[in-house]
Amino acid sequence: MEAVNIGSMLARFSEHWAPKKIAELNDYDVKIVKVLGEFTWHRHPDTDELFFVIDGALTIQMRDGDMVLGPGELFVVPRGAEHCPRADAEAAVMLIEPRGVVNTGDAGGDRTAEAQALT
Amino acid sequence: MEAVNIGSMLARFSEHWAPKKIAELNDYDVKIVKVLGEFTWHRHPDTDELFFVIDGALTIQMRDGDMVLGPGELFVVPRGAEHCPRADAEAAVMLIEPRGVVNTGDAGGDRTAEAQALT
Repeated sequence: MEAVNIGSMLARFSEHWAPKKIAELNDYDVKIVKVLGEFTWHRHPDTDELFFVIDGALTIQMRDGDMVLGPGELFVVPRGAEHCPRADAEAAVMLIEPRGVVNTGDAGGDRTAEAQALT
Repeated sequence: MEAVNIGSMLARFSEHWAPKKIAELNDYDVKIVKVLGEFTWHRHPDTDELFFVIDGALTIQMRDGDMVLGPGELFVVPRGAEHCPRADAEAAVMLIEPRGVVNTGDAGGDRTAEAQALT
């Protein structure tokens, strides 16, 4: 058992939109991801998804408006709600959601990435 | 729907060891708590418990040693593991665990506190 230092974990990779698993909480995964640019519109029909911004700014575009998050801010995208994350400069985000949820939700496509363990 | 700014939420209360609920993630609650001094040895027989330090330093005493966490560090106490949080100076911590889990786990006592919503 050891503590997880988010900054140290972020220093270990550079690619964008590829979540890394850093801890488990029951049947949930705690992941970190670096983001830059616009992702893909998608939804997760069966689960909420928690975004917590570590560094930079993240815009979560939703069909009824944008949610802009800075460091120390979190937002839970409700299950089923279409969303498309966007970052105009590189940002780092912690994600928490049930194990097995994939980043592109129901949209699929070539940006789909299974979370890799970073431990 | 709105973003949750952890700093703003922390500014709204001052008491220690009284978790405040700031968001929901499916059947999990996201809570923040201010801590100072030593809590109570206890365990949660049915669930892991995630601690993420926002400000200050938190020591999670466990039977096989102490886990010391600073800002940006997280630790998941495994289900069933006895632990006793301690902070020698005031610290602020985010907790994530299934709804209904109480702070004192199986130990009970007069420090038991239901998480109050802070929204």
